[in-house]
Amino acid sequence: MPGVTSHLSKVGPRRFRLPHAPARRPAIRSPANEASIASTSKPRDRPKFPCVEAHAARESRLRSSRQSSNLATSSPSTSRALPPSAEPEPPYERPNPRSYKTYNHSKPLPLTYAPALPEFDIAYETWGTLSPAKDNVILLHTGLSASSHAASTDLNPSEGWWEKFIGPGRALDTNQFFIICTNVLGGCYGSTGPSSIDPTTGQRYATRFPILSIFDMVRAQFCLLDHLGIHQLYASVGCSMGAMQSLAAGWLHPERVGKVVSISGTTRSSPGAIAMRFAQRSVLMADPNWNNGFYYDGLPPHTGMKLARQIATITYRSGPEWDQRFGRRLRPAPQSALSTGAEDSGSPRVPALCPDFLIETYLDYQGESFCLKYDANSLIYISKAMDVFDLTSSALAELRLTPPPPRSAPPPLPPSLVSQPSSPAHQHYHWLTSHSKSHPPPPNPPAHLPELAEGLRPLANTPTLILGVQSDILFPVEQQREVADALRMTGNNMVSYYELGGVWGHDTFLLDVQNVGGAIRGFLS
Amino acid sequence: MPGVTSHLSKVGPRRFRLPHAPARRPAIRSPANEASIASTSKPRDRPKFPCVEAHAARESRLRSSRQSSNLATSSPSTSRALPPSAEPEPPYERPNPRSYKTYNHSKPLPLTYAPALPEFDIAYETWGTLSPAKDNVILLHTGLSASSHAASTDLNPSEGWWEKFIGPGRALDTNQFFIICTNVLGGCYGSTGPSSIDPTTGQRYATRFPILSIFDMVRAQFCLLDHLGIHQLYASVGCSMGAMQSLAAGWLHPERVGKVVSISGTTRSSPGAIAMRFAQRSVLMADPNWNNGFYYDGLPPHTGMKLARQIATITYRSGPEWDQRFGRRLRPAPQSALSTGAEDSGSPRVPALCPDFLIETYLDYQGESFCLKYDANSLIYISKAMDVFDLTSSALAELRLTPPPPRSAPPPLPPSLVSQPSSPAHQHYHWLTSHSKSHPPPPNPPAHLPELAEGLRPLANTPTLILGVQSDILFPVEQQREVADALRMTGNNMVSYYELGGVWGHDTFLLDVQNVGGAIRGFLS
Repeated sequence: MPGVTSHLSKVGPRRFRLPHAPARRPAIRSPANEASIASTSKPRDRPKFPCVEAHAARESRLRSSRQSSNLATSSPSTSRALPPSAEPEPPYERPNPRSYKTYNHSKPLPLTYAPALPEFDIAYETWGTLSPAKDNVILLHTGLSASSHAASTDLNPSEGWWEKFIGPGRALDTNQFFIICTNVLGGCYGSTGPSSIDPTTGQRYATRFPILSIFDMVRAQFCLLDHLGIHQLYASVGCSMGAMQSLAAGWLHPERVGKVVSISGTTRSSPGAIAMRFAQRSVLMADPNWNNGFYYDGLPPHTGMKLARQIATITYRSGPEWDQRFGRRLRPAPQSALSTGAEDSGSPRVPALCPDFLIETYLDYQGESFCLKYDANSLIYISKAMDVFDLTSSALAELRLTPPPPRSAPPPLPPSLVSQPSSPAHQHYHWLTSHSKSHPPPPNPPAHLPELAEGLRPLANTPTLILGVQSDILFPVEQQREVADALRMTGNNMVSYYELGGVWGHDTFLLDVQNVGGAIRGFLS
Repeated sequence: MPGVTSHLSKVGPRRFRLPHAPARRPAIRSPANEASIASTSKPRDRPKFPCVEAHAARESRLRSSRQSSNLATSSPSTSRALPPSAEPEPPYERPNPRSYKTYNHSKPLPLTYAPALPEFDIAYETWGTLSPAKDNVILLHTGLSASSHAASTDLNPSEGWWEKFIGPGRALDTNQFFIICTNVLGGCYGSTGPSSIDPTTGQRYATRFPILSIFDMVRAQFCLLDHLGIHQLYASVGCSMGAMQSLAAGWLHPERVGKVVSISGTTRSSPGAIAMRFAQRSVLMADPNWNNGFYYDGLPPHTGMKLARQIATITYRSGPEWDQRFGRRLRPAPQSALSTGAEDSGSPRVPALCPDFLIETYLDYQGESFCLKYDANSLIYISKAMDVFDLTSSALAELRLTPPPPRSAPPPLPPSLVSQPSSPAHQHYHWLTSHSKSHPPPPNPPAHLPELAEGLRPLANTPTLILGVQSDILFPVEQQREVADALRMTGNNMVSYYELGGVWGHDTFLLDVQNVGGAIRGFLS
């Protein structure tokens, strides 16, 4: 495809950006109106669709890149860290173990749904200073596709996914706390996942990797904490899927987790959220490159990943934000070689079937930016773990999980108070500050609420912050209220509950430093 | 793939059902848990994914079917109506012109964005009896993918998509009215669309078909009305995209359209709705079978259509309905040949990566049922027409559309009153019954509302019913209020406005016979 290649060669090196950074127009300028113009000016020509050709062009670039990689390495199928090569080799194929720490757990990890994982790695990063008593630790859990790089470090000075929430005086205050963030088990940024080598076969796990649960992910994190000699967490903090892990951590280890923060999470995924993740998995698994998950010797399902990310992006933001940001505006009119000039002389601009509205170019760009940044099998496994997460008592019973007794210890004092002599006033401090009266339990709770309250009993004495966003369509605010209500029904009188307005939807936790950060800081201090 | 073929051969003849009929479990029973089970019981085997194999199996069936068709016809590429063949030949490839009427317009149709269409067909069906004065006509507009078969007829006794809304004493009362429903221009059920033969080339249009607007579709309908000698419509009625057409009909021909009914429609698609349709077009156009739209000599993009329909289905229903209907329930445990029996002896059921939750099997079934029922290019073109529809004054100005003056005639009297002597009481009748006071214009209208009111001026004297559904995420209730508000700002004091609750979301117009039907019947009588 020489035409396509030359067209795309103008773009230059691929610039990857954070998926949640402000959108810019795609760097690829192309005559997306060709289809319509061709149909009027050259009826015999078949129209072209640059947005579709982009998939073949990406495939072609990847193939060239893979071939040059193969020349440089003798056994790519068993090599974890491939040598540097020309872009756009997927970055998760070339992990840089010097930019984060790795803990190798050489003993089996019991799993919820499968025989034990024989061994595993957990990639992690830390911020702040561990106190001598090791009592100032915050375990930060990530969303689906994030790495351990929540904020810049000496090892990796690039900006992290929660950069503005971590640091001196920030929501997670490094003057007070020692913060640990891991790449999740099942992920592809240094922790063991489907793209890792199965030690029993010497080959990548691919879809031979066992189905994971949120509990499995948390158990792997506690292996790391044990290794670090950390018995007590001051708090477990997470957003989105990280909120599920945060709640699961408090549930599994009530005595080891002092406080729980759940931002835009849930205790049980709704069918609507499962539907959106199912749609993503479906387009991904339908990509021929996916090859039942065994693509590591070939090319990754980059087209399926792009399409899946487009769908995901719709669930991360909200309609009201798009109304304000994009409205119904079109991208600038393309300078097409096929343009007849008629467009300027009285005829309306011809709509294109490729991205034409700004909202379309935004989704296209988000998909394109992500499609080689993350391992497809990790997306499939981790999104499934989110779907099956359920803290109602009947679901827990099916997992044969024995609920531990609720926490017996009083809530931990913040570091600023630990050094002062303890007093009854201190003991009572948290109840006074965290007991929200602005959201009373519902007079007529839905049928499943008692069952959820029964499931949440291990958290009955754990101070918990629940924060939700009214414009979130993925973890809707009704689910936030449900968690707070169920916790209160356990007798927990240390539930802080906030709802945020605004237009950012689910992504609010990445953007609203003032309100999300302020609530966390208030709850932890 | 002999294994897959034999597996699917148990299913028997494909049974197509209405996409909105109550869901049943897919007829395909398959060991969807194989993936997980294989990974634990036979670690060296590669897991299988029946939901992915289904795509290849469908391809294989289509190929066999196409080959037998090719044997029976000498020039399939130029033959509109292919001969009957074994299932699963797409039904739109075998139109049955005896089940509906067709009007051929042999003169050019001017288009909004392209040179005129040289000629076109419009398929239509009718119910009730045309009055001698031809003054009892209701033009019914369809949603995106519906045919003209809104209800059963003598020509086609099968159930229509609005069966319970059309008939004696029903919402569209065939005792009073003569109802016409057309397959939309651009569609694939008898009207001219991308799958039709371009008379200038003798080949299918494919993506050489011109981009359409909602106005173009309505103009084609009025060519049919002219042909039938119908100058006046008692009312224009439509739901979803049909509501856009209904409003456009009243806008283009204020003097010819007595009343307008808009159910779950909009005057301007929101970026959120465009995003959902863009995601559908993207997965469809990425299917290699799509072939830039030139698939008519090969196989249709059935996998892309299935994936697109899964996404669409999410927008048609609502989370609350799924909470009630599916909750977090799983499909019955599969009887897998690979089952070790361990599932029953204390281990939890292993989640499957193929459809496992009922909501997943529902979406899978909806996609599978639809993927060969509708032409992919029609979906692309018509969904784009919905995206570009915009009745604000600035958008209309860009289309160089001259707004006609508002209706000067008084609202039409219903047939039951026509035969009685006219009186001032009759004249005033409609103002009294249709002027809603329960939804006053907003005190602080959003910025675009005056521009929308300016655009809607041709409808200033047309009695209009706006009905929306609070659980609709595709045409959200804010858009319904916006249309009613803008109409009132034009000075229109004959706006009826209703909001419905309930859990059915956008599909309410297909399901809620009592409330949707009642509102229409009240407004029309």
